[in-house]
Order: sequence, then C-alpha cells, then structure tokens
Amino acid sequence: MANRPYILISNDDGVAARGINYLIEVLRPVADLLVVAPDSPRSGAGCSITTSLPLTCRELRREQGLAVFSCSGTPVDCVKVALNEYIERQPDLVVGGINHGDNSSVNSHYSGTMGVVTEAALQGYPSVAFSLCDHSPEADFTPLQPYIIDLVFKAIAVGLPPFTCLNVNFPKLSRFEGVRICRMSRSRWERETQRCPHPYGGDHFWLTGECRELEPEASDTDRWALAHGYVAVTPTQLDVTATGLVDILKSVL
Amino acid sequence: MANRPYILISNDDGVAARGINYLIEVLRPVADLLVVAPDSPRSGAGCSITTSLPLTCRELRREQGLAVFSCSGTPVDCVKVALNEYIERQPDLVVGGINHGDNSSVNSHYSGTMGVVTEAALQGYPSVAFSLCDHSPEADFTPLQPYIIDLVFKAIAVGLPPFTCLNVNFPKLSRFEGVRICRMSRSRWERETQRCPHPYGGDHFWLTGECRELEPEASDTDRWALAHGYVAVTPTQLDVTATGLVDILKSVL
Repeated sequence: MANRPYILISNDDGVAARGINYLIEVLRPVADLLVVAPDSPRSGAGCSITTSLPLTCRELRREQGLAVFSCSGTPVDCVKVALNEYIERQPDLVVGGINHGDNSSVNSHYSGTMGVVTEAALQGYPSVAFSLCDHSPEADFTPLQPYIIDLVFKAIAVGLPPFTCLNVNFPKLSRFEGVRICRMSRSRWERETQRCPHPYGGDHFWLTGECRELEPEASDTDRWALAHGYVAVTPTQLDVTATGLVDILKSVL
Repeated sequence: MANRPYILISNDDGVAARGINYLIEVLRPVADLLVVAPDSPRSGAGCSITTSLPLTCRELRREQGLAVFSCSGTPVDCVKVALNEYIERQPDLVVGGINHGDNSSVNSHYSGTMGVVTEAALQGYPSVAFSLCDHSPEADFTPLQPYIIDLVFKAIAVGLPPFTCLNVNFPKLSRFEGVRICRMSRSRWERETQRCPHPYGGDHFWLTGECRELEPEASDTDRWALAHGYVAVTPTQLDVTATGLVDILKSVL
C-alpha cells in the first residue's frame, strides 16, 4: 500500500456531516486517508484559529488505510493539529469538504472549507476544496463522484504552484455541463441582519442576507459557470497583495 | 459638524482593548466615530461569521460625534451589524485596530483586524487596518499617532480601488524610519501544537508556534520593512483568483 496516495481531509460542517463522509467513501478505495474534522458544525469559520482554549481531539475510527479524528477547534485548527500531530507521512494532497453550500465568489472569504485548503497551501501542500451549492443536510453528492476522482488525481499528479489552491463548486444538479476554469466573481451580501426578539429586550440580530451578483453578464466567473450548469474551478492565491496598487501608492504616500 | 468625516471602527481585541481606545482618542478630534467592536477578545477570528447564534449588541457610550457599541460576534459580524443597523450616514472610511500584534505576511489570513477591513471593502468602503507588532495589553501606541492621522486622511481624500484595502503594520519602536509600500512576504508557521496535560488524559493541544520567514532577503516585503524599522503598508486585494493559473489549468483540466 506504500504507493497509494495519502490524503488529509477536513471540512467545516463537522465530522458527522454527509458531505465529508461521502468524500471518504469516494476516496477510500484509491487512497489512504487521514480525516481530522471539527466535532460540530463550523460554517462561516473562515481562516479563524483558536488561541484562547486548548483543542480536544479524539480518535473515532482506525482501520486499514483510514484514521478519523474529531477536534474541538476550527477547520484551520484541524489542519494544524493533523499536520503537527497525526500525519503518518507527508500528505500528497489536502482536501476540504464536501461542503454543504456555495463557496463561490466572496463566500470564499467566510468559508471554513476554504480555511482548510488555505491552511494546507500555506504549509506547502497542494489542496482542493469541494462545495455543493445545496445547504441541505440530505444533499445528493453522487453526481460529483467522477469529477472529484478526476480532480484529485490530477492535483496529485500535476501539483499546484506554491501559495495556491483550488476552490471547486458544483451547482445543485443531477448532471453537469462540464468543468470551467473561472475567476472569482464580484458579488455583495445585502440586508444581512434580522432583529431577533428577546424576552428582556435589547439589540439581538440573526445574520441573514442575500448575495447580489455585481457582474452577472461576465462569462468568465465562478457564479456564471454555476448559473449555467458547469462545475466551477477557481484557482486561488494566498498572496493577497494588490500588486497593481503598490506603485500607485508609492506616489501618494 | 456635517463636513467632518464619519469613520466606522472595529477590532479583534475587543472593545475594552487599549489599541482601539487609543485609536478613538486619536481620531475623535478630527472625525465623527461609530465604534462597534467585540465584547471580548477575538484574536485569530479571521473573516469568520456567526451563523448559529443571534448577535447581542449593547450601546456603551453616546456623546457628540461618538457612539460605541459592543457586540457578541466576530469582527466581521461587528462590521455587518454596524453597516446594517447602526450607521447614521455612509462612512467615509472603515478602520480596523489598532491591533495588539503583528498582522503582516501570512498572519493577515488569520487576523480579525484584517477581517474588519476585508468585510468593509467587500461592502464597498475604503478601509485601513492598523497593527502594532507588540502583543502586550500595555503596548505604547503613541509613536503611531502622526502616521495614523496621515494615512486616514489620505485614504479618505484619495479613496481606494474597489475590492482593495490597506494592511498597515508598525514595528515595536519609539520612532520609525518612514513608510514603505510592500508586498506580503511568504512565511510559514512551524511547531504549532503543544500538548496540554488533562486530568483524565486524552489529546489536548494548545496552538503555539514560530513564524519562519521564507524570503528574508527580499527587500520589498512587509516583514523586511518591519525588521528594518519601517511602517509597512501592504495594499491588499479581495479578489483571490490566481489569475496566472487560469490559462494553465485550462490546458490541464
């Protein structure tokens, strides 16, 4: 088994979510897997880390070619613990997901699934995030299977440049038009708070909102691809320098 | 007072931190301020949002030209609540900080202070994050004062392109060599977990670690600027598409 790929998996919906367990099922026949995932849902965790509490981790399963741990921390914490404490050899790939919900466009900033692959890429590992645009806990992940296998093996074989990762989003469909390589679209969340009555009064709000696309006609974006039935693959970089602004600011500041 | 700038302020160290209160003190004579900040420290919150609990907010101060609220959520939550519930007019600028600690290089991904300005820029507002490379709660912020005033007024006067913000880091010094416009350096956190004994056993870890610079000789980075006594201004973009990878992947996938 020494030549089987070794893949680290985490997510933000928690170790019990259907998405991560479907991913384990799909990849287990073809790779050795280490799973370290949050012990409860952590949607919207972004790249957050836990600095004020210790992280509690538990081994849930250990079988030939599969070890599963839960962790009390965030998705990024899970990757840090996995890489520092639990890996048995250097992973060939780190996979985040499969997320229950859309991580395209600006959502990637809030996404714990993207937190997983951002952290992995910061540590020098090729990494791919998978998300299905369906928040339902009972979402049907089976149409994704051949695309996941294809992208995982290509990512392992070809690798990715340092400080980059892939953000892959699937529309909620039973079949797809194909794969499109995209850029992140510009969109904006609006009407994001809803007052929540409290028996003793005071200001209490639920976060909610609608995501408005700012460039719906642009056919090179992830949101366009999803709206037209394609699997959206958005190559993502961790160097967030606004390179074009550097020289402009030198003349202003 | 109608022509005074209107500035929204938040942070990740919490509304009681010395850094944000120094920022209020510095900006209050020259601008009307709305402060909505976490009710407790939220270091390492990144761009995380709170989706599983309502946010509880309280007005702590209201005086001529100053309103201060605490919020039970993350730094990004604070900005969302402020913009949806508490602004009295459109802010001219959103400021994050002053953070107690270094948010340069890869730290920007984990930073709640960068979460503040990322969220503001996603909503279309010019925004600037200030951080001092000194974690002490008693850190001395006074050397920063003229630089903050200068950068705040330039950002208001000149504005920033859509989907960008500024990440400003100050070295821990009593005076600075000047301002450098930088790119984000590549660095890597190492040895990030420390086992934490527990009376009943099991796996418990504190996050810790050391940040190793991967390109210490490059003189155009934020970490180089800080190491050489300069104020590091890193223009930051919210479009994280790895543009150079789009065409390459089109030929592979």
